Amino acid sequence: MIPFQKYQQLIADHLAAMELPAEPKGLYEPLRYVTSLGGKRMRPVLVLAGCELFGGEAKNALPAAIAIELFHNFTLVHDDIMDQAPLRRNQPTVHTKWNVNTAILSGDVLLVKAYAQLALSPNDKLQTIIQVFNDTAVKVCEGQQLDMDYEKETLISLAKYIGMIELKTAVLLAGSLQIGALIGGARDEDARRIYAFGRNLGIAFQLQDDLLDVYGDQAKVGKQKGGDILANKKTFLMLKAIELSASQPYQKEALLNWLQAPASNDKVEGVTAIFDQLQIKAAAEAEMKKYYNNALANLKDIPLGEEKKKELVAFVDQLMGRES
Amino acid sequence: MIPFQKYQQLIADHLAAMELPAEPKGLYEPLRYVTSLGGKRMRPVLVLAGCELFGGEAKNALPAAIAIELFHNFTLVHDDIMDQAPLRRNQPTVHTKWNVNTAILSGDVLLVKAYAQLALSPNDKLQTIIQVFNDTAVKVCEGQQLDMDYEKETLISLAKYIGMIELKTAVLLAGSLQIGALIGGARDEDARRIYAFGRNLGIAFQLQDDLLDVYGDQAKVGKQKGGDILANKKTFLMLKAIELSASQPYQKEALLNWLQAPASNDKVEGVTAIFDQLQIKAAAEAEMKKYYNNALANLKDIPLGEEKKKELVAFVDQLMGRES
Repeated sequence: MIPFQKYQQLIADHLAAMELPAEPKGLYEPLRYVTSLGGKRMRPVLVLAGCELFGGEAKNALPAAIAIELFHNFTLVHDDIMDQAPLRRNQPTVHTKWNVNTAILSGDVLLVKAYAQLALSPNDKLQTIIQVFNDTAVKVCEGQQLDMDYEKETLISLAKYIGMIELKTAVLLAGSLQIGALIGGARDEDARRIYAFGRNLGIAFQLQDDLLDVYGDQAKVGKQKGGDILANKKTFLMLKAIELSASQPYQKEALLNWLQAPASNDKVEGVTAIFDQLQIKAAAEAEMKKYYNNALANLKDIPLGEEKKKELVAFVDQLMGRES
Repeated sequence: MIPFQKYQQLIADHLAAMELPAEPKGLYEPLRYVTSLGGKRMRPVLVLAGCELFGGEAKNALPAAIAIELFHNFTLVHDDIMDQAPLRRNQPTVHTKWNVNTAILSGDVLLVKAYAQLALSPNDKLQTIIQVFNDTAVKVCEGQQLDMDYEKETLISLAKYIGMIELKTAVLLAGSLQIGALIGGARDEDARRIYAFGRNLGIAFQLQDDLLDVYGDQAKVGKQKGGDILANKKTFLMLKAIELSASQPYQKEALLNWLQAPASNDKVEGVTAIFDQLQIKAAAEAEMKKYYNNALANLKDIPLGEEKKKELVAFVDQLMGRES
């Protein structure tokens, strides 16, 4: 069994031990704040798992894992400015607690510090690792841009939505696995296969996130039920509902009315009722399952024992909170 | 003679040939815009010069030079947001031409693209080069933070001011030379000496910039005379004037009055008159000369022929527009 909690502990220890200067306070306090907010550390855990999967030692991948986590934190700080988000992990975002300039600059330093960690990776693989990291980083930025672009459009296709979440969410999970695999000694083609696995998994993961917002067990999810509905977010559920209701005049009108209604419990219940009528839950689950199965198929050609593959799948099921 | 214009051409060609995707437009149009605005390309030119100075071939340092230029552009885009600057090189800044979110995100991508170029540097020196680049990048961010911090303070010491411009301006020139030198085959200790040379030179360079704002030949400088005075910027001249006027009640009162006056030609002339009475020009020139001479002294222990050193000095004089 892949030691999830051991990995999390390794990462937390390494992050806590990272030396940051005291001054200028305005720069380093936000940085300490952000990196201590916690979270599941899913991405760096995937780096370590990817490394050990191919026979490497987790400690060799630790700097790269920290780099991925710092990069992820950098994107959160800057995205939160762009999305004007007041809270992150139930705590005030950096631009709320300090100000926008502080959030821009401390985000920038996070990205530089990410590369400083990445550069501590094994020298003989450094060029390839940086290349994968950069490709991934650029895609994440492209995903954020598309997300902002699509917010201004009245309707986007499901294909565009999947393309956007692939860039914004999935490629970072994929790149984490690939970088870990490369450090662990995987051949380039197997590292690419594990990337494909991670990409499909990441899309499944985001679709699950969309589902949990409406159909999750609130005690487990830890977020307000229907937060995406309240914010009129164009999730897979909403876009699918808009698509399916095109031929259903009653649901179409009701949905458009709810989209214009202010945030309220009634809105969440009203939209959920329409989702139910259109069987959106089943549609989203089918889509999620499709990408999940694609991910499993990507594992097939990787020359690892069945036992190792089963461990990996159990591991990602655990990450995804699946009860399999 | 070090071929300044040849270097500029190499850099311009390489930048123009850099392949950028067409989509998402919102991300890549600002990037193309910023990198095509031009400028003297002083920093990447220093990378190439540093490389050839130690016997390397400029083309080996070209990716690192581009990385430095992209990094510099990244800092300009983000600094312009923080400083709410409407113009850069007489063109609208990215956040003015587009918006703040676009400027944040395209700045982020510029930084990632800088690392992508940097990673193309010779593999055996990559780890060291990235380390120098990162140290420099962090310092530049610290300098920007101090600059913003100091703006809120009523008075800062000259020592703090010099410390700030060292971080914000000088270390990038220093790091450019050091990275070039490393790629050119310099020993680590000589690369550090050329860094020290660049740092002192950079401080002299910024002090000259402060001087030119008030005492420059406007036809050559190409900026509004007294722009720093109009913006109440705490330059070396202003801080020195505040320091010297502490014991001169008449000038002290007049200076404080002008600082509170709205922007006007009278303000520029009034403050300049006080500068003249306090002999600020000579004081700033002496300070600049001190750092310039420090820079020359840093060259002494570098084992290069006198001819090479003379070439380098002639080259930086040319960069600084000195008529020596």
